[in-house]
Amino acid sequence: MSSTRLVDTTSTTTTTKKKMKCISCKEEYGSSDAGTCKECYEEASETEEELKQEIEELKSKVAFLRFPSPVDYNRSSSSSSSSCFTDVFLVASDDHDRDKGAPFVPAHKTVLASRSPVFKAMLENEMEESRSGTIRISDVSYDALRNFVQYLYTAEVSLDEQMACDLLVLAEKYEVKYLKSHCEKFLMSKLNAENAFMCFAFSSQHYAKNLHETSLSLIVENMDKLTKQEEYQELVEKDPRLIVGIYEAYLAKQVNTAAAKD
Amino acid sequence: MSSTRLVDTTSTTTTTKKKMKCISCKEEYGSSDAGTCKECYEEASETEEELKQEIEELKSKVAFLRFPSPVDYNRSSSSSSSSCFTDVFLVASDDHDRDKGAPFVPAHKTVLASRSPVFKAMLENEMEESRSGTIRISDVSYDALRNFVQYLYTAEVSLDEQMACDLLVLAEKYEVKYLKSHCEKFLMSKLNAENAFMCFAFSSQHYAKNLHETSLSLIVENMDKLTKQEEYQELVEKDPRLIVGIYEAYLAKQVNTAAAKD
Repeated sequence: MSSTRLVDTTSTTTTTKKKMKCISCKEEYGSSDAGTCKECYEEASETEEELKQEIEELKSKVAFLRFPSPVDYNRSSSSSSSSCFTDVFLVASDDHDRDKGAPFVPAHKTVLASRSPVFKAMLENEMEESRSGTIRISDVSYDALRNFVQYLYTAEVSLDEQMACDLLVLAEKYEVKYLKSHCEKFLMSKLNAENAFMCFAFSSQHYAKNLHETSLSLIVENMDKLTKQEEYQELVEKDPRLIVGIYEAYLAKQVNTAAAKD
Repeated sequence: MSSTRLVDTTSTTTTTKKKMKCISCKEEYGSSDAGTCKECYEEASETEEELKQEIEELKSKVAFLRFPSPVDYNRSSSSSSSSCFTDVFLVASDDHDRDKGAPFVPAHKTVLASRSPVFKAMLENEMEESRSGTIRISDVSYDALRNFVQYLYTAEVSLDEQMACDLLVLAEKYEVKYLKSHCEKFLMSKLNAENAFMCFAFSSQHYAKNLHETSLSLIVENMDKLTKQEEYQELVEKDPRLIVGIYEAYLAKQVNTAAAKD
């Protein structure tokens, strides 16, 4: 609010009250609904316009920086693959070897190295992968591998819960922080009482801190109901230390609540 | 504004007027300064928060997609250059040949091809550049070439007016629309009466439409003053057809102004 606005302080304290009209919703409002003066609202609108413009500019920049994804090339279109200067192949080791006709994902060493410090070390240090031009990725489906590579090129991927888990594991293994955070956010948006134990166990295993804390809170808030789930019993069998962690958090919450009441 | 807000329409039409307090600047305001109701202002503030969050997310995406620029490698650090898998050299043909020890810029075919359809055609079609691994760029300084390559990798470059002109020419030649638009915006931000003729001639030559129109308007609005400039006389000598275009725009404006008065 600039200091130049003139406020008439002499004559308006007692007068016929006119209701004011909101310049946004056009409805009338009284003093209890008073929001801003005109100048402040107009400033806020300008800010909004500027922010929207900045968003458009950033979107253009993203479009410019995004790489064409090589995931649609495979052996059957080796000519277009080679014409895109790919110099390395990724093979999901759950599948058969590339030499035996299994699908593989062609890629560029420079793109992999720029996105992942693990690939960078692997490819720059004349290791087996660099010499052979083939990187075997273990315990991953071909679909997950394709999506992983696509994300490294484009920063875009369509997720469901299973794919978000698969990609989070890959992102952790190859230290692609940005993808890991993307998958974690997706899983947090899908968190509910039904999958809370699964999310808690998964996030504990893969150091997904935000998902871990949020799922733990959800469980602690619904202890009575959730400990009757099959998933609870499964986790007790499989990883009792995690369950201990839950009870410790539950106890701490009880103590805090009691202390707050005193 | 939601439809659930209750408005008391029965009792407040005649009463002691209370001045309202702006929830943004905290000052009091009367009906002539009325902006929005509380609810609309709070909605606008939420929108602003959301937009700011979107901006942060887009900035992270840009950081992820940005490539490490190879412009800092040269012959003296050939090991780090090769370890980054560069497979092509760009040479400013104003400088001496790479073989004769002049500086060059190493790069990746895949990056050049993804940013410029001209490089893509050149590199994918087994032309001389693709076979030799050397792309000669004519009529450009080494500095401009470095900045050009850096922009292709990072979408960032620091500009002054000369560099913006140099890069706009390169961006036009290699069809890097995003960079051309970036340089054009920069030049528009520097446009003034002093450089209007230069900008007008430059934008005409390089099909920079927005800069062309804006500089033409500026010239037409200041005809009397600007036609006394040295730059005007130079342009009359060098490219009289451009001057004709200016006078045609001036005439059209006069006619329009006269018509508007009638």
